[in-house]
Amino acid sequence: MTALATPLAFRAIDVICKKRDNIELSREEIEGLVSAYTAGEIPDYQVSAWLMAVVLRGMTRAETASLTDAMLRSGEVLDLSSLPARKVDKHSTGGVGDKTSLVIAPLVAAAGVAVPMISGRGLGHTGGTLDKLEAIPGFNVNLPVAQFRSMLETCGCSMIGQTAEIAPADRKLYALRDVTGTVESPYLICASIMSKKLAEGIDALVLDVKTGSGAFMKSEKDAAFLAELMVETGERMGKQMVALITDMDQPLGLMIGNALEVIECVEIMRGGGPGDLRELCLELAGWMLHLGRATKTVAEGRKKSADLISSGAALEKFRQMIELQGGDPGIVDDYRRLPQAQHRLEIKSAQAGYIASMQCEQIGTACVILGGGREKKEDAVDPAVGIVLHKKVGAGVGAGDSIATIHYNSDAKAQRARQLIEQSIEIAATPPATKRPLIHKVIGRSI
Amino acid sequence: MTALATPLAFRAIDVICKKRDNIELSREEIEGLVSAYTAGEIPDYQVSAWLMAVVLRGMTRAETASLTDAMLRSGEVLDLSSLPARKVDKHSTGGVGDKTSLVIAPLVAAAGVAVPMISGRGLGHTGGTLDKLEAIPGFNVNLPVAQFRSMLETCGCSMIGQTAEIAPADRKLYALRDVTGTVESPYLICASIMSKKLAEGIDALVLDVKTGSGAFMKSEKDAAFLAELMVETGERMGKQMVALITDMDQPLGLMIGNALEVIECVEIMRGGGPGDLRELCLELAGWMLHLGRATKTVAEGRKKSADLISSGAALEKFRQMIELQGGDPGIVDDYRRLPQAQHRLEIKSAQAGYIASMQCEQIGTACVILGGGREKKEDAVDPAVGIVLHKKVGAGVGAGDSIATIHYNSDAKAQRARQLIEQSIEIAATPPATKRPLIHKVIGRSI
Repeated sequence: MTALATPLAFRAIDVICKKRDNIELSREEIEGLVSAYTAGEIPDYQVSAWLMAVVLRGMTRAETASLTDAMLRSGEVLDLSSLPARKVDKHSTGGVGDKTSLVIAPLVAAAGVAVPMISGRGLGHTGGTLDKLEAIPGFNVNLPVAQFRSMLETCGCSMIGQTAEIAPADRKLYALRDVTGTVESPYLICASIMSKKLAEGIDALVLDVKTGSGAFMKSEKDAAFLAELMVETGERMGKQMVALITDMDQPLGLMIGNALEVIECVEIMRGGGPGDLRELCLELAGWMLHLGRATKTVAEGRKKSADLISSGAALEKFRQMIELQGGDPGIVDDYRRLPQAQHRLEIKSAQAGYIASMQCEQIGTACVILGGGREKKEDAVDPAVGIVLHKKVGAGVGAGDSIATIHYNSDAKAQRARQLIEQSIEIAATPPATKRPLIHKVIGRSI
Repeated sequence: MTALATPLAFRAIDVICKKRDNIELSREEIEGLVSAYTAGEIPDYQVSAWLMAVVLRGMTRAETASLTDAMLRSGEVLDLSSLPARKVDKHSTGGVGDKTSLVIAPLVAAAGVAVPMISGRGLGHTGGTLDKLEAIPGFNVNLPVAQFRSMLETCGCSMIGQTAEIAPADRKLYALRDVTGTVESPYLICASIMSKKLAEGIDALVLDVKTGSGAFMKSEKDAAFLAELMVETGERMGKQMVALITDMDQPLGLMIGNALEVIECVEIMRGGGPGDLRELCLELAGWMLHLGRATKTVAEGRKKSADLISSGAALEKFRQMIELQGGDPGIVDDYRRLPQAQHRLEIKSAQAGYIASMQCEQIGTACVILGGGREKKEDAVDPAVGIVLHKKVGAGVGAGDSIATIHYNSDAKAQRARQLIEQSIEIAATPPATKRPLIHKVIGRSI
């Protein structure tokens, strides 16, 4: 500890004590802390004390924006200003069966709005866009920045993983937060998400903030607080922002698991697929078209999105994107070219009644157990496994009806997953009294 | 950070999250954290996050006792049970001119109560008992435990520094707190003080908790809170406890500086010296004799203490202790055998009036600047320098009267000290309306 007792370390302790004593930090103080930490000039133990003070004291809006900005500027910020199209992205806080990105990116690009999408992997019980894309044989999510940029010019969209150059402060801070009990702070979550998204060089961002039993923010209040924080932070940094609080009290759509979700997305782009997934894709795309100035209103954006699906333009764009990223576009016409699990197991209802509720996080965990996600960071993902639901909340079931099909490659894992799913789905004699809306709330000045 | 992600690190994060979420920790959880940290099994960055959560969430009385106990048991606990005498110590939270230990230890020992005193060095603007003792030529504060024990048998008192074996958890935690903004927590201060004091193998402890402009706890409320916490923690661990909240709004006595304070202590033991210092020594010694069962009441203890001063027994015991610890007992009869500064500088009052107040911390800092304390940990202390006050708060002064004399060895330092002292002493036209009491409050069940 003494080796680092330099003037810089002294400054760090002032910043720690101010946050501890609930005194607002200046932009310079936050910038100093983040850049010194990223450069390895102040030790983990000082930053973890500061992070805990942030968790317990909170941050003002100005502090949150300063932190986001400092983390953003810790690395490369893509300059896409040479691209004539408006650049709009969407970010979801994560859920189960939450696969809209695969539909939205090509759909919005088909309307002439550029979508530079840098995505993540599955976290906890939730799926990740990169894992889904990698279910497509050959699909490469690790493009160099130059290729990402040229794809945005030629195709209008590209979907890649975070590069080492983008927001290195976030990577370092996240690793520390993970082991020091400082993950659960809306201010730190906001800065982590927004610093990465704003590094994409976008003009506008549509946030899909999930709420319910399958979301990280279980309560609508917490979800709305985080949404407002992110919207205001983005606006302070000159971006057009909107946040939709959407339902994650049951899985989105019917399919959970990487290859299965690719299939469901293609179904949507073919004009089919489950109603809730289609509705959310149109809503999010509608907002992106509106913020991307492709349509005057959100309603027009929804309409145009539906048209681009009907005309086949969205699917064609998806095919193009797959091909440009080295994947097999043939999966769109022949699902058998996607990885398939060796076995199927039906989960049957023991009684007649109605699906009353689902413990959505547990269903996500069941998919992780099957191998569709990671229990430890270094685990490999099995793209073929997953769960296909046959009923949504509110649906009637007869005794012996199949509620879900498990796609699996390991008996032991299938049994663990089956148990978890059976416990997660509640069947009642009468249908649930109220139906949760798909879109709970829209937050933002752009409304 | 990954190298330590063992099961132990996982447990540490549970303890961090519980404290963060305001859930009371069990004795096992606190003991686990402290012992794993002392053994180097969990990293600084996890413990600093936990410490910040403790600073902001506080601790229950049971948690505070568990932490004290875990820190105490991280090292050696002296077993003095073979010593027939009762063992009683005194601890002060620190102040300016706060020199009572040098009087009290021999005085109480002269009454047949053993005083196993393990002391500290100056911290910040406050003086330290070890630094004062080392102003006596030859005095050795680094005795091995065996010699400390044998001195307690033959002399009844011994005054040494903390050994490496006592409460190593406190040493490690304190170093971390010092650089992570987690010093200022009454719970952590209590555990730090009490773990070291209880390692002395004492039966009872008298606490002198300072309050006022020269104390670490400026407000009486904060001082009383810490005092109650320490009293309850000691009682939970089976010790007889009492805490006196005493005034530190001006220096105690008239002399500040290591050799000067030794002189003032000898003056007290000769039956002279300033009234406030004499009163506080008799009060603290009175309590120690009472808790040490040498007298039935505190009043009798005070009386007996005064008698031991009049008879010369206290001074004789002091002489014996100095000799047994290798020091020159001749300093008692000839102050010129103590280090003396080369120069004197008078601080004169610019106006006639009354001493209205003193910024006591600044006067302590002036002594540090002269070289009487350490600005950095590795600084050497100059035992000769210091300040002699000629007036206390409330006293009248004429224009041009000397208020204080600076004893110094460096012109530049003397000028800085003079400025600070002049700024610290307020002179008003009328005497202060109220006089602060020397003893503000007595806390403890033993009253």
